[in-house]
Amino acid sequence: MGAADHTRRSLGLVETQRVVLFTEDDPLVLDSGETLFPVEVAYETYGERTAGDGNVVVICHALTGDANAAGHHGDPDRPGWWDTLIGPGKPVDTDRLFVISSNLLGGCQGTTGPSSIDPSTGAPYGLRFPIFTVADLVKVQRRLLQHLGIQRVLAAIGGSLGGMQVLQWALDHPDELDNGIVVCATSRLSAQNIAFSAVARAAIMNDPDFADGDYYATGKGPDHGLSVARMMAHITYLSEESMRQKFGRRIQDREEPRFDLGVDFQVESYLQHQGKAFLDRFDANSYLYLTRVMDYFDPFADAERVREQLAHVRTKFLVLAFDTDWRFDTSHSRGIVRTLTAHRVPVTFREISSPHGHDSFLLEVPEYHRTVAAYLDRALEEAG
Amino acid sequence: MGAADHTRRSLGLVETQRVVLFTEDDPLVLDSGETLFPVEVAYETYGERTAGDGNVVVICHALTGDANAAGHHGDPDRPGWWDTLIGPGKPVDTDRLFVISSNLLGGCQGTTGPSSIDPSTGAPYGLRFPIFTVADLVKVQRRLLQHLGIQRVLAAIGGSLGGMQVLQWALDHPDELDNGIVVCATSRLSAQNIAFSAVARAAIMNDPDFADGDYYATGKGPDHGLSVARMMAHITYLSEESMRQKFGRRIQDREEPRFDLGVDFQVESYLQHQGKAFLDRFDANSYLYLTRVMDYFDPFADAERVREQLAHVRTKFLVLAFDTDWRFDTSHSRGIVRTLTAHRVPVTFREISSPHGHDSFLLEVPEYHRTVAAYLDRALEEAG
Repeated sequence: MGAADHTRRSLGLVETQRVVLFTEDDPLVLDSGETLFPVEVAYETYGERTAGDGNVVVICHALTGDANAAGHHGDPDRPGWWDTLIGPGKPVDTDRLFVISSNLLGGCQGTTGPSSIDPSTGAPYGLRFPIFTVADLVKVQRRLLQHLGIQRVLAAIGGSLGGMQVLQWALDHPDELDNGIVVCATSRLSAQNIAFSAVARAAIMNDPDFADGDYYATGKGPDHGLSVARMMAHITYLSEESMRQKFGRRIQDREEPRFDLGVDFQVESYLQHQGKAFLDRFDANSYLYLTRVMDYFDPFADAERVREQLAHVRTKFLVLAFDTDWRFDTSHSRGIVRTLTAHRVPVTFREISSPHGHDSFLLEVPEYHRTVAAYLDRALEEAG
Repeated sequence: MGAADHTRRSLGLVETQRVVLFTEDDPLVLDSGETLFPVEVAYETYGERTAGDGNVVVICHALTGDANAAGHHGDPDRPGWWDTLIGPGKPVDTDRLFVISSNLLGGCQGTTGPSSIDPSTGAPYGLRFPIFTVADLVKVQRRLLQHLGIQRVLAAIGGSLGGMQVLQWALDHPDELDNGIVVCATSRLSAQNIAFSAVARAAIMNDPDFADGDYYATGKGPDHGLSVARMMAHITYLSEESMRQKFGRRIQDREEPRFDLGVDFQVESYLQHQGKAFLDRFDANSYLYLTRVMDYFDPFADAERVREQLAHVRTKFLVLAFDTDWRFDTSHSRGIVRTLTAHRVPVTFREISSPHGHDSFLLEVPEYHRTVAAYLDRALEEAG
């Protein structure tokens, strides 16, 4: 890492932009064959483009992320979700890199999704929003670059569902990404992974206020189900050890337990808070679609196709896992590495020790940050 | 093991009995100081008592068990929940042992619980049912023995919450149990264990049809929440590996995925079925109380008290864990063994290899069954 490491600064106030990328004349053609328009995308950029676009980094967010990866929208105490990683002097160093971060297709933070108005009905899509795939997410990422006139990507980087996009992107467009950084992701969810998502969706869809997804005009929504889904997901994002350290069996706001059915242990209070806070920022239908897109992701399923795809891939990979991650444990990352390596795609793999489980990718884990910084330093050098 | 092992037979038709054990004049005094009456208990017995009661085994059930541990109630294809373990020639050999199995206090299968009528109001208790502890569960187990005129217990045996009762029983009444068999239990839930229970309770209590627990007369109940709670619990009962083997990423009833938000993967179908089937046999309020009793269980919390208690314990223990159990992993059992051993209480400990996770205690895992059979053989011998 360069001297920049010692001068970490915040990006400060940043702004989200919006652009319509697909229209009736030029719709988004989904993997399913269905078409979608208009598709508006919310995105942010950080840093300055260099001539030749040799310094472009694309951020792909995870299940509940948004375009605001770095900097803030007015309150410095509420920075973007990857602000520890992205900024001046940070591993994704905006003094040297031009960074693009957009809200995913199907999301609810400015990009077209199930809560958007369906022009054919004048009402929100709800469950009439078409099913899409990780490849479809990548199509939108690529169209945004095209809109910005960018031909070349130094690196695409993402954690969890973000990493899945990076992998799919390299497979579908083997000459577009110089580098792919895939953090605590998977090439296919296990039965247990799917099971957790299935229960989350059941919690939402079984909620009487879900109204088959048409809850937007009712003044209420499947808040109970969505908060339960989020509470359960949070358990899978933390390691057992981090929960032990963070909460143990401590009681909330008192010395002695109350011995009742309410919220008494600190861990209960934490989960309740997480469940409630989530309602302010996330749409239940988006949660359904974006969990489902992960369930179906399986880009290595067809060995013959993978062989053909990987024969042409010129992307180099950095694959990172965290040793206490049990949402997508290290074996998932090893699986990706094994397949890439078997097809002679260059991969650097690191299992990073961190007590924080799957959430580690969002946190300032020193070895993780050093690894990303060093990898991008090298990538920039190689790009000349 | 004796020759009985080769002649395993079913108990066949068995009958549940009911008895009122606590009355207004002689109420159950709970740990909280509150009193409860009447307390009716549903129980079954298998096998014949020998003179001197040297062959009495008490079965303590887990969270959602009932009195029907062995034999059946009319349909041989629906045997009791521990029928693989209990019966003629089985590890808990009813040719030689007299076995007692009762539904727990707070349950919903014949023993007084939140769905029972509160005599002071003439309506079901609902959330007015008093909070109780594992020690209170033991008080009811003991009163049943007293009612049956039994003075001596060769062994108490239980898995999960059942094992917690066995441990508490030995601590509170150090001279009553000759042997305690504690299977995949814990002396204290971890933050993650509590977290899963907290989300389950949130799913139930946030369900609009929960009606603060007074749903009995409404013609509906928190079915959505209870089924979600059960679905989530099932994930924690199976190991990741057993889910992989049982379901993998297979699609239900077809070759190709449907690519929709419904039930498509086999694991989803399984969980949905488990969630729905549970509604027919379990009461949501009982689920709340019986999960809560586990959260608060912490019999080794007070080191001084434990020292005093364990100094007098004459119970010998068999503690069993399963290597793929992640609901209460082996470290929980080791914790129990460590404390017992530190206080010179005799313990045999085995970690049994089984792919089936926490559910292993309900299944016919050969090494597990052999271990229990051999332990009880020896116990019977020692009892003379």
